Amino acid sequence: MTKAIDFQTDPSKYRHWRVEYDGPVANLFMDVDEDGGLFDGYQLKLNSYDLGVDIELSDIVQRMRFEHPEVKVVVMQSGKDRVFCAGANIRMLGGAAHSHKVNFCKFTNETRNTFEAAEADSGQKYIAAVKGACAGGGYELALACNHIMLTDDSSSSVALPEVPLLAVLPGTGGLTRVTDKRRVRRDLADVFCSMEEGVRGKRAQDWRLVDEVIPNSKFDETVARRAREFAAQSPKADVTQGITLGPISRTITDDAITYSLVEVALDRAGRKATITIHGPDEPAPESADALVAQGDQGYMLRLARELDDAILHLRLNEMTLGNWVFRSQGDPEAVLEHEALILDHRDHWLANEIAQYWKRVLKRIDVTSRSLVALVEHGSCFAGMLAEILWAVDRSYMMEDEFEGDNRALAAIHLSDGNFGAYPMGNDLTRLQTRFYGTPEAVGTAKEAIGEAIEAERAEELGLVTYIYDDIDWEDEIRIFLEERASFSPDAMTGMEANLRFAGPETMETRIFGRLTAWQNWIFNRPNAVGPNGALQRYGTGQRGDYDMERV
Amino acid sequence: MTKAIDFQTDPSKYRHWRVEYDGPVANLFMDVDEDGGLFDGYQLKLNSYDLGVDIELSDIVQRMRFEHPEVKVVVMQSGKDRVFCAGANIRMLGGAAHSHKVNFCKFTNETRNTFEAAEADSGQKYIAAVKGACAGGGYELALACNHIMLTDDSSSSVALPEVPLLAVLPGTGGLTRVTDKRRVRRDLADVFCSMEEGVRGKRAQDWRLVDEVIPNSKFDETVARRAREFAAQSPKADVTQGITLGPISRTITDDAITYSLVEVALDRAGRKATITIHGPDEPAPESADALVAQGDQGYMLRLARELDDAILHLRLNEMTLGNWVFRSQGDPEAVLEHEALILDHRDHWLANEIAQYWKRVLKRIDVTSRSLVALVEHGSCFAGMLAEILWAVDRSYMMEDEFEGDNRALAAIHLSDGNFGAYPMGNDLTRLQTRFYGTPEAVGTAKEAIGEAIEAERAEELGLVTYIYDDIDWEDEIRIFLEERASFSPDAMTGMEANLRFAGPETMETRIFGRLTAWQNWIFNRPNAVGPNGALQRYGTGQRGDYDMERV
Repeated sequence: MTKAIDFQTDPSKYRHWRVEYDGPVANLFMDVDEDGGLFDGYQLKLNSYDLGVDIELSDIVQRMRFEHPEVKVVVMQSGKDRVFCAGANIRMLGGAAHSHKVNFCKFTNETRNTFEAAEADSGQKYIAAVKGACAGGGYELALACNHIMLTDDSSSSVALPEVPLLAVLPGTGGLTRVTDKRRVRRDLADVFCSMEEGVRGKRAQDWRLVDEVIPNSKFDETVARRAREFAAQSPKADVTQGITLGPISRTITDDAITYSLVEVALDRAGRKATITIHGPDEPAPESADALVAQGDQGYMLRLARELDDAILHLRLNEMTLGNWVFRSQGDPEAVLEHEALILDHRDHWLANEIAQYWKRVLKRIDVTSRSLVALVEHGSCFAGMLAEILWAVDRSYMMEDEFEGDNRALAAIHLSDGNFGAYPMGNDLTRLQTRFYGTPEAVGTAKEAIGEAIEAERAEELGLVTYIYDDIDWEDEIRIFLEERASFSPDAMTGMEANLRFAGPETMETRIFGRLTAWQNWIFNRPNAVGPNGALQRYGTGQRGDYDMERV
Repeated sequence: MTKAIDFQTDPSKYRHWRVEYDGPVANLFMDVDEDGGLFDGYQLKLNSYDLGVDIELSDIVQRMRFEHPEVKVVVMQSGKDRVFCAGANIRMLGGAAHSHKVNFCKFTNETRNTFEAAEADSGQKYIAAVKGACAGGGYELALACNHIMLTDDSSSSVALPEVPLLAVLPGTGGLTRVTDKRRVRRDLADVFCSMEEGVRGKRAQDWRLVDEVIPNSKFDETVARRAREFAAQSPKADVTQGITLGPISRTITDDAITYSLVEVALDRAGRKATITIHGPDEPAPESADALVAQGDQGYMLRLARELDDAILHLRLNEMTLGNWVFRSQGDPEAVLEHEALILDHRDHWLANEIAQYWKRVLKRIDVTSRSLVALVEHGSCFAGMLAEILWAVDRSYMMEDEFEGDNRALAAIHLSDGNFGAYPMGNDLTRLQTRFYGTPEAVGTAKEAIGEAIEAERAEELGLVTYIYDDIDWEDEIRIFLEERASFSPDAMTGMEANLRFAGPETMETRIFGRLTAWQNWIFNRPNAVGPNGALQRYGTGQRGDYDMERV
């Protein structure tokens, strides 16, 4: 699995999904092309999926929000007879490297979180209409929908057979959604998660595994009626016209990825990627109508799409680049103007979508398992939503005073209202609240600094950056840090960062990325699952895995 | 490491710790005997510890509460010059099996939670008086104290060097306590946790790593004064006389462990341990004074001690027994009487200690990584605190109606006030609240059943058990379940149970056992840490670990 994975697609290229738009209701059909696997060596039978299938789904969810704001209800269903979805493809998992499995699960988790949150964020409610076997990752697709309808026939069931069948956990939030979202009683959850055959009919509803069980003869009409009802009850405003998400501008070479507003420099010897974000190249639109007119070329949306793509590309294709360095260059006031137009028009559908998208992109940074550092240099534009990056990273360095021969504007951070609520983390706190978990009064003090150009000494005093260095120390300190960090065990860094980044309260989302993912990663390393005689290798041979029976 | 580990000890056997009692202040000295390791192959230099050292500490913490209720402040300090504690012994970790490492960490975590909670539960506040190097598990000992005092000299520091030095995480809650208890700013935590040398002096206080930094010349007197001050301010009532915890009654044979009130049958072929708890063999004491007079022979305390020992023995010494079956036999009314005496006298120190101890024993069950099942048979006594076991386990089975040739009283569950608040789980909810997270009204309905003998059909209706079976199905159903469960991959069960058992809110405690432990387990399996060229094996050779630099 060495070919580069491309996260960009569009409907003309889909092989696995199709959407039928019907006014406020979209019917989304999963109809996986068996021969359309992202890699060789497996067939995507029974609507099973690999990363390629999920990249299309992610694209659909994104386009639904920007290109089809008229949609209020999405009905996720199977395009095949007798099977809803059999989950992640087992042969693909059996052949994949640990790092691919883990990053595959992370991306699929992010996609599920996105359509789950679409109802609250954008007024688009996802319904799962389940006919046929709905197992493992298939049921996890349904679990991330906010209403699950199951047909009552002799063969349709929901199941999480991973534990008994494959000796791994459901990989995309299944266990957590069963207990925390569906709130299934824990002993029933234990029974459910340890039975291969799953649960069907009335029992599935009694156990809270689905919301409705419907006689098969009335299933389709009931689903259609329910979709219309939800659409009619939706508080979402009517919007008739979306914008088109065209291809992003991107050039990939051996040592760089270049977008219109983002540059990524790849330093494989130094094990780092430097991500430079540019400020606006055009004035902010003056109204929501002007924002719509700009479409996918507006600064805020274009930058979010490019940054999102860069993050995904680096995560899956550049796994040895353990350090990511975030830089910015540009006019901070211009960034603030673009952000202000968005934040001032949160009741406008497109402004809202762009703000919600920034929330998601910033969350992707939060859960990226790389050491993240930000450099606040002269000429930089860490302002508003870009300042969030300073608190998403593990640590930050800022230039203090003038540097010899450097004529750029002195490094300064600019806060906006957006930093105090527009982009919450997975733990439902802002990044500043999380940062100042021990000194909550510091959040208020920072808020009073909105409008200031916060230079180094003041930024340190406010606790907004980790280190400030002047011309004499800057280069050495950063070099030493990056060299040292690059020498540490990547596993230990991953574990450390996963624990330090999310102080305070946990949510279903943080539990999925923190608790559930960690246990799954552990199991994904154990011979019982992935060894030559483990369950994943033996899947399909009729032989169960050969297990070491010692409990850990 | 195959010799049986004994969790029973007493002060006459201590090799590593000593306590000087001084009225309301106890001075606890860690002074590890280098040659006193639990296993061969390593020396416990620099006050480093292994499980044997921690078993003594756990015993001290327990005796402090029962034998020395006069103590209000415990000062944890080093008995050696120049080093407070160097943490868990690295050579021991390097040589230990994965299962030993994980269970070692679990026990040490439980001990730290216990002395951390001693202030809230029993009015005994632990202070760490840190002189000399305080690194890794050493700093984690300090972190679990509720006040940390650091001397200001050129060499005393606090550090978590695990990540840079050993490529593993601090194993006993360090990362979580840094962010959640000490509330260190996350970028400073990142800096702190990736520097070998740690932080000393004023910076340690500025970063919230310690509470006080004191000039070395005034350290001892300041610690003594602070201890007296805390003791004087303590709301704990004055108690002059404790009770003595004598040896427990225990016989270990090849296939059984027999206590006075607990029997454990070991079935290695079937990979299960059956734990039978007996009801009271004597009437409940009639007053708190009578409870004191019974001392360590009273039913509630004796049973808690025996059950606690059985749990620890099975966890560390019988790792292939993946299923634990809890049974009980006895008079449920008698159990309720014993429990009522305790709960009715929560303002009496000993009654309080016994209730708090039951809370801890039940929490040990919650975090035990074995598949847990309870059988509610005829003649059983799952009442009050013993009924908690039914909701600590993963699932439960209950006998319905009369069984042929069985003259015992019909199986019935008895609830008490204790089930609605006396024994909270680590997530701060009761087990019934956690169980009924999806149907909170069911907790109230259950509460109305206090006083009833709840037989099978009613227990099922109330949601208190998973399955009820009559004479025809009972034996087969349980046999099939246990055989099936014993055939599953133990790793998958561990991961599944760790995720299903704790619905809802998380606390520092659940985050330590859930998120932190899972990441540590993952790292403990990775070649970068434990492989032949990994950091743990190379420790002390002057060579850093040879790392696979791919990020996962």
